[in-house]
Amino acid sequence: MKAIHLPLVTHLHHHNLDLTKNRVPKVYAYQDVVKTSKKSNRLGEKLSNLLNIQKNDPPPSTHSTLNNIHEDKANTPTMSPKEDISDRWRDIHGVHEWEGLLDPLHPLLRREIVKYGEFAQATYDALDIDSFSEYCGSCMYNSHKLFDKSGLNKSGYKVTKYIYAMSQIDMPQWLERSKLTYTWSKDSNWIGFVAVSDDEESRRIGRRDIVVAWRGTVTPSEWYENMQRKLESIGHMDSKVEHGFLSIYTSKCDSTRYNKSSASEQVMKELKTLVDFYKTKSAEQVSLTITGHSLGGALALLNAYESAANFPKLPISVISFAAPRVGNIAFRDELYQMGVKILRVTVKQDLVPRMPGIVLNESLQKFDDLTGTLEWIYTHVGAELKLDVRSSPYLKRGFNFIGIHMLETYLHLVDGFVSSSSTFRSNAKRDVALVNKACDMLVDELRIPTCWYQLAHKGLECNSYGRWVRPKRDPEDIPSPTSREENTYGF
Amino acid sequence: MKAIHLPLVTHLHHHNLDLTKNRVPKVYAYQDVVKTSKKSNRLGEKLSNLLNIQKNDPPPSTHSTLNNIHEDKANTPTMSPKEDISDRWRDIHGVHEWEGLLDPLHPLLRREIVKYGEFAQATYDALDIDSFSEYCGSCMYNSHKLFDKSGLNKSGYKVTKYIYAMSQIDMPQWLERSKLTYTWSKDSNWIGFVAVSDDEESRRIGRRDIVVAWRGTVTPSEWYENMQRKLESIGHMDSKVEHGFLSIYTSKCDSTRYNKSSASEQVMKELKTLVDFYKTKSAEQVSLTITGHSLGGALALLNAYESAANFPKLPISVISFAAPRVGNIAFRDELYQMGVKILRVTVKQDLVPRMPGIVLNESLQKFDDLTGTLEWIYTHVGAELKLDVRSSPYLKRGFNFIGIHMLETYLHLVDGFVSSSSTFRSNAKRDVALVNKACDMLVDELRIPTCWYQLAHKGLECNSYGRWVRPKRDPEDIPSPTSREENTYGF
Repeated sequence: MKAIHLPLVTHLHHHNLDLTKNRVPKVYAYQDVVKTSKKSNRLGEKLSNLLNIQKNDPPPSTHSTLNNIHEDKANTPTMSPKEDISDRWRDIHGVHEWEGLLDPLHPLLRREIVKYGEFAQATYDALDIDSFSEYCGSCMYNSHKLFDKSGLNKSGYKVTKYIYAMSQIDMPQWLERSKLTYTWSKDSNWIGFVAVSDDEESRRIGRRDIVVAWRGTVTPSEWYENMQRKLESIGHMDSKVEHGFLSIYTSKCDSTRYNKSSASEQVMKELKTLVDFYKTKSAEQVSLTITGHSLGGALALLNAYESAANFPKLPISVISFAAPRVGNIAFRDELYQMGVKILRVTVKQDLVPRMPGIVLNESLQKFDDLTGTLEWIYTHVGAELKLDVRSSPYLKRGFNFIGIHMLETYLHLVDGFVSSSSTFRSNAKRDVALVNKACDMLVDELRIPTCWYQLAHKGLECNSYGRWVRPKRDPEDIPSPTSREENTYGF
Repeated sequence: MKAIHLPLVTHLHHHNLDLTKNRVPKVYAYQDVVKTSKKSNRLGEKLSNLLNIQKNDPPPSTHSTLNNIHEDKANTPTMSPKEDISDRWRDIHGVHEWEGLLDPLHPLLRREIVKYGEFAQATYDALDIDSFSEYCGSCMYNSHKLFDKSGLNKSGYKVTKYIYAMSQIDMPQWLERSKLTYTWSKDSNWIGFVAVSDDEESRRIGRRDIVVAWRGTVTPSEWYENMQRKLESIGHMDSKVEHGFLSIYTSKCDSTRYNKSSASEQVMKELKTLVDFYKTKSAEQVSLTITGHSLGGALALLNAYESAANFPKLPISVISFAAPRVGNIAFRDELYQMGVKILRVTVKQDLVPRMPGIVLNESLQKFDDLTGTLEWIYTHVGAELKLDVRSSPYLKRGFNFIGIHMLETYLHLVDGFVSSSSTFRSNAKRDVALVNKACDMLVDELRIPTCWYQLAHKGLECNSYGRWVRPKRDPEDIPSPTSREENTYGF
């Protein structure tokens, strides 16, 4: 396995020097270093044992001018004006495996990658993760509100369907679960959505684009340990995929409210409806783009495989972020034969794309090495856009495996990527603050709080009696197994 | 030292069983126990070594009906109607050392204790702790807004002055510090305020009540280790007090903006102004009540000592929460002789009131034992209202030294306290949810998130360009060394 560069404790000391320069009180700096370096040290050692990592790393920059850069950008739009790509959409959609478009990265492709990544990000931002909420594991908003609430109101797409997957399948529960006895569903989790481009966006991109976005999750190592050794046949050929991913995609149970049909059946039904309507009835040019981050990237691949089998002539692309390996070589070959185009966005320092093989466990913060047993079985598919955390002057040095794996970190690096040989794009417009939504990756000079994406008072509100209570959900936001934007579309 | 009961890992297992009963997924319950029990185990062992604690504890209740109780209360006021105490205020203010009023706790006294405790709580709730804010360590609000913003708008008091203390005194910095180079003040912290009862409240309580509320802090062990061994003379008699507390109270520096005068000088100047105005000019009956939590309780005692020397005939009381020992026996005796009345509210399981002697360090989560060297020097003063975490059915079993020390936990226990022999007051009205503001003390059945007292997006706001930025402070909320509610009062 190729050696990767991971900054270890030495750079935390550098970092600490920076801090001291900024006159942070010793007691803080000291504690920071104690905490961070101890952890990184442990992780670092474990890692270097696992991957014989080279411990040398360029000294971090002092970010002296970052503050100004950031200040200057504070009052500028976060997006470049949309350009018409109607005559080049097939290239950007990967008809030629994105050859010549990735390094250097074509500006039009960069923008589309970020667009799809932000769809995937919405599945995290809108998820109810309050384990004391009876709606834990559902989307907080009605599907027609999702994009507004996620800052994607200008995306030019409309959500047509929410997808649910079982959370009590034959593996340790890894999805969001409520601690309550009576909840919207004990068995299911909101796992993604289907959306379709509106007329204006369709004109700009040259076809009616159907998107499926799959939500990922932090996966406890137990889950990998129990599941990732088991390959399971898919289709009628030799294709095999990881059992855990497949069971999330295909599990159903009649006694549940949301999974009488599996995630697979839900999404395929919706795709059939949309393809029939736009392709068959309206004779439009239609494409399918499937995206997802981490585990969501794995589900995207399974979804693409099934879609290709069901819609032979439909142009199908997968744009995945930080996705683990999913299947064997036969699975990869079959995807190729069916013409599925796959673009894997990875970060050099991220471990998840090396899975199965290495397993990280957020709660216990340890690594397990399964490489020996699994490496040969699993294989990656498709073209790769390989990013490097160290290319961004906005990101902290020091090993932070959660932060490095975060989708927002990926989107930031895509936004700044010019080519593997050039530095971070100085005119990158995407809001840097987003990176710290749920982690601690931005350098202090930017003054962005860590893990700042949070509700006021975690959703509690002070009622007229002065008591802090959890407000009832807006009825239209209470999940329903059957809801669909019937009215918006004439299906 | 009297042995205290601390629930150790065994009860965490009980707790876990409870959780499982509520069908929390194994993966959670498992991780909970691993995390919590490991920590508690370590702490528990350390503690039992330090204090030879008995490890037996009554099995925790199942809290079966709590949910309903809480639901029922959700739509009721959090305060009983205010009663006229004008004819009994001296008793309630401690003229007879609260004899016969503490066990059982007199309802009128209970209410006054909570009132003063909530003033102290406001010094925490309104503090800017964003280390990336240029106002870190200041109060977020102008003094005339403080009570509105802290839910004390019906308190019947008005803030007249903010107090600042040096944060760069000759000890490891223990106050809130900004990481920025240019800030409102590199040297000072908002440490408390002076307030005075309005006419209506003064009629109800039988006198014009001046309140000084002192803010506490989590104190790094370094600070204790360096400071708590040093006693320093105060006044001209044999009285000695802990050097660290005294230097916070008395430090000043001409080159600073906020501490050209010390906290002591600021508060005494304000007290003189108020006493002159209400007592001398208006010939009103005036009292002084000084309150504070943790370190704030120590400062309250120093402030009371100085006030008694300056205002011989003024009725002065201290109501402190979780305060450590401050001085020697001569200091205590002098306070008595000067007629200062002191009510110490303590929680049996809280370690801070045992300090100096035991030192806890939040960041490193360890205990240091200085008891041998210090026990004999320091002594507590005044009457004690002793609470027990286990008296409340709303609070988790299991040792949580931060949660047990929190002022909100204290106020909850005061609100429910009837007598040392009776159970938690079933008609206690104070909002239970407040306990979890900054800790994890409430049982799951109440469904209150942990550490929920937080700003939306940690204060970031999305501007018109779609960028997340830290909004500028309302000019009137920017701290000023000289500000005083001149207009409200005719001083």
